[in-house]
Amino acid sequence: MRRFVADRARRAAAASLRAATRSGAPSAGRPSPPPSPAAAAAAMASAMVRAMSTAPVSLDTINPKVLKCEYAVRGEIVTHAQNLQQELQKNPESLPFDEILYCNIGNPQSLGQQPVTFFREVLSLCDHPALLDKSETHALYSSDAIERAWQILDKIPGRATGAYSHSQGIKGLRDEIAAGIAARDGFHASGDNIFLTDGASPAVHMMMQLLIRSEQDGILCPIPQYPLYSASIALHGGSLVPYFLDEETGWGLEVDELKKQLEEAQSKGITVRALVVINPGNPTGQVLAEENQKKIVEFCKNEGLVLLADEVYQENIYVEDKQFHSFKKIARSMGYTDDDLPLVSFQSVSKGYYGECGKRGGYMEVTGFSADVREQIYKVASVNLCSNVSGQILASLIMNPPKAGDESYESFMVEKDGILSSLARRAKALEEAFNSLEGITCNKAEGAMYLFPRIHLPQKAIGAAQAAGTVPDAYYARRLLEATGIVVVPGSGFGQVPGTWHFRCTILPQEDKIPAIISKFKEFHEKFMDEYRD
Amino acid sequence: MRRFVADRARRAAAASLRAATRSGAPSAGRPSPPPSPAAAAAAMASAMVRAMSTAPVSLDTINPKVLKCEYAVRGEIVTHAQNLQQELQKNPESLPFDEILYCNIGNPQSLGQQPVTFFREVLSLCDHPALLDKSETHALYSSDAIERAWQILDKIPGRATGAYSHSQGIKGLRDEIAAGIAARDGFHASGDNIFLTDGASPAVHMMMQLLIRSEQDGILCPIPQYPLYSASIALHGGSLVPYFLDEETGWGLEVDELKKQLEEAQSKGITVRALVVINPGNPTGQVLAEENQKKIVEFCKNEGLVLLADEVYQENIYVEDKQFHSFKKIARSMGYTDDDLPLVSFQSVSKGYYGECGKRGGYMEVTGFSADVREQIYKVASVNLCSNVSGQILASLIMNPPKAGDESYESFMVEKDGILSSLARRAKALEEAFNSLEGITCNKAEGAMYLFPRIHLPQKAIGAAQAAGTVPDAYYARRLLEATGIVVVPGSGFGQVPGTWHFRCTILPQEDKIPAIISKFKEFHEKFMDEYRD
Repeated sequence: MRRFVADRARRAAAASLRAATRSGAPSAGRPSPPPSPAAAAAAMASAMVRAMSTAPVSLDTINPKVLKCEYAVRGEIVTHAQNLQQELQKNPESLPFDEILYCNIGNPQSLGQQPVTFFREVLSLCDHPALLDKSETHALYSSDAIERAWQILDKIPGRATGAYSHSQGIKGLRDEIAAGIAARDGFHASGDNIFLTDGASPAVHMMMQLLIRSEQDGILCPIPQYPLYSASIALHGGSLVPYFLDEETGWGLEVDELKKQLEEAQSKGITVRALVVINPGNPTGQVLAEENQKKIVEFCKNEGLVLLADEVYQENIYVEDKQFHSFKKIARSMGYTDDDLPLVSFQSVSKGYYGECGKRGGYMEVTGFSADVREQIYKVASVNLCSNVSGQILASLIMNPPKAGDESYESFMVEKDGILSSLARRAKALEEAFNSLEGITCNKAEGAMYLFPRIHLPQKAIGAAQAAGTVPDAYYARRLLEATGIVVVPGSGFGQVPGTWHFRCTILPQEDKIPAIISKFKEFHEKFMDEYRD
Repeated sequence: MRRFVADRARRAAAASLRAATRSGAPSAGRPSPPPSPAAAAAAMASAMVRAMSTAPVSLDTINPKVLKCEYAVRGEIVTHAQNLQQELQKNPESLPFDEILYCNIGNPQSLGQQPVTFFREVLSLCDHPALLDKSETHALYSSDAIERAWQILDKIPGRATGAYSHSQGIKGLRDEIAAGIAARDGFHASGDNIFLTDGASPAVHMMMQLLIRSEQDGILCPIPQYPLYSASIALHGGSLVPYFLDEETGWGLEVDELKKQLEEAQSKGITVRALVVINPGNPTGQVLAEENQKKIVEFCKNEGLVLLADEVYQENIYVEDKQFHSFKKIARSMGYTDDDLPLVSFQSVSKGYYGECGKRGGYMEVTGFSADVREQIYKVASVNLCSNVSGQILASLIMNPPKAGDESYESFMVEKDGILSSLARRAKALEEAFNSLEGITCNKAEGAMYLFPRIHLPQKAIGAAQAAGTVPDAYYARRLLEATGIVVVPGSGFGQVPGTWHFRCTILPQEDKIPAIISKFKEFHEKFMDEYRD
């Protein structure tokens, strides 16, 4: 089995750092030598071996699973960017740019995307139901938002939006979500199978917590992957079993590769419990073909794996020849029922065209588990009482948006189509720009919110990174940040084929900023290549 | 060390059930023989020993920590109540009562408490900031709510309430909360030490996850305790080290008892990492005296324990001679600084006079940890990105409510005082009612939202419970529910001195319902005693 590549990179980098330190080599002569992930790992290692601290809590006495967990999307580069932003505020002339452009995270509204009006009208009314009785309200809110708010309140026992709900979420809202799923897929869905959660992340944690008993339990994850998965598996003490997406075929997911990695893990005594598939892909942006999805379902069925389907980008598709199909729809269309296959689909209000990250709404649809296991999931959900009710309401709205004939329908469609078509244009512009550069190749973003270009770094740049005690893609990302204010996440935070280097860049900056970003990026990259070309 | 009593009760009950099954004893002749916690435990045990299931996921292949976790507040009695409620809806004449009265959980708005107007106005405006530019808005919202919404939006980068925030929460809101803490305590507080969370529960989980490495790590918890603690410790694989509150002295917390239990745990090879104190107490309702708190701080300092202070009921005090003092205030008043003592205070928007459970807002103030450990807490917070922004806003509002001179101040104070004085009256009425009954003794609710009466059950009732395969207090609670529709939680869900039996009942039903609840309760209890009196 190929080792989990981020681990390998970290170890290699830490070794270089130690070597560099031993030989007295100076750190690279760039501004602010980076306290890289590798340096942090080395510091951590030294903390682990130093004598037991006398403090009640120190790095050598906390849960080692917490130490092991990594989350690059808000890692060291982002912290550095936040510091630079503070510097800019204090002294606007101190840096070679005038703003930080956060392309590290799928957070559309932080970059100026406006919320969808209808959704916010309904939330605002549900937060202050007293408004519904006042005639002045009609001057401020659309009539279908008022009507929808009434409908939602009628689904909440006692109309109490400030009460803890049922542990799975408000039943009427779950039923509405299930109806939305059924309409999307053409197959039955039940509100009893919906667990509303504070975004998709807690739902992923719940499933990992349920399935992972020890390091001997493995979860098949794509490489590159969204680091929530590696972090959650680390926190729950399991083993990430990587399968590699094929960059050459547009980040293709091959069942032969799944099978090979499964068998290799089994040969090492790992019990593989589940397969994570992210579709559309994060960070890779591919959209799976229906035939491919069928093979994946078949594989899970044959191997007795839980299929964990991350489908949070289901509304984000930018190419004409691809469509989103949920794995549940695929499984049902193959004739598999609830009895055949445990399948969990994750959805979130943070993504799509709405991008409501701050609302922390989401759900998982849980099918194919026995009643007694379902009860255990319910119990764990109950320990945290319920997810936030505004997020629950919003999750019901995204699965049941305004329909033709509703007062808000036309303006809603203008907002929705405007956002999605702009995202498609931005994805294309950035992809073409990356592909126009020396030593960069970039697959198309068919969906999701990211590009994941490969950088073919000159040997000299790799050497400079090693001298700076960091991995090459982190070195590149840091140099980019310090030259342009653009924040991307090094590929090593997601995993990549050893010896290849990438970065993840969102397509989310507002469209009028894209030309400037592209020209800044080009200028940086050309200078970087001039500096390091072999 | 006394065993963790809930465990003991469960084992004992399971043993009785097995004995009952062996001897062919019929289940109690009451309506709907209860599938009690004990029966569920027995079913679980049998599931664990039966042959490996062929399904990918079954009770014998999930994480045993999940199986072990229990959470009585939404346990079997509540599920039974939900089923009865559905029955009532279908056939209103089918049961001897016409509504279910949920006294199982501190969920004020589910029982008719109205939200505080000012807080909801601000949330409603922040959810739909476009309102702030419209003149009609002044007809619907108070001017200070509008002003506050502007102030809050100015604290949010890009005024984007739909964006992921900083992993600890929006900096400006954290600073506002810190200012509120400083005003409350008279000691400095910093926004850098605040971690905003989706209610207090995820904050408790984060600390347990950080501190617990294995079963050899113990957390000192009060018995009775709020079962979030036992559940979280079970889920993270640690050991709950119980210390018993003294019912005779109004649920007194004695440092001698802490010391005894600590030493007993240590003698068994347990490393005790932290002490949980719930003040005001849940389920016990006591408010700690300042002198007592000082001794607790001293104990933690001397023993090198993290002090985990559950202070979510800090606004709920109902007696003139007691006051809330935060543990941080106590520690600082003793001269201890950030360097002396790791201390975490949990707060929530769900409790207090506001009772905004559905909003899932809360925070923890983390002091006395080294920078490198703090970074690990930050990293774990980052994996889930951030807590919901409406909850963050509400947490800032409860720590900075309207002040004298603000337009809303008077009506706000009427709402606040109305709720708190009514809660005090309800607590007193229920306590007196319980104490008037044969075989029930009940300490005063000095604070929080609960009474935890002791029921001195006749031997015959205990026998009936055993015959029904359940523990006596669960049997009593089930009979109460089936006779009156009143839902309380058996004491065994919180832990209690072995051989004693209790239940937890909230003081939250609206005041006009209290007399009917009391008379229903009395009638049930008297009949129960007539049936079982020895």
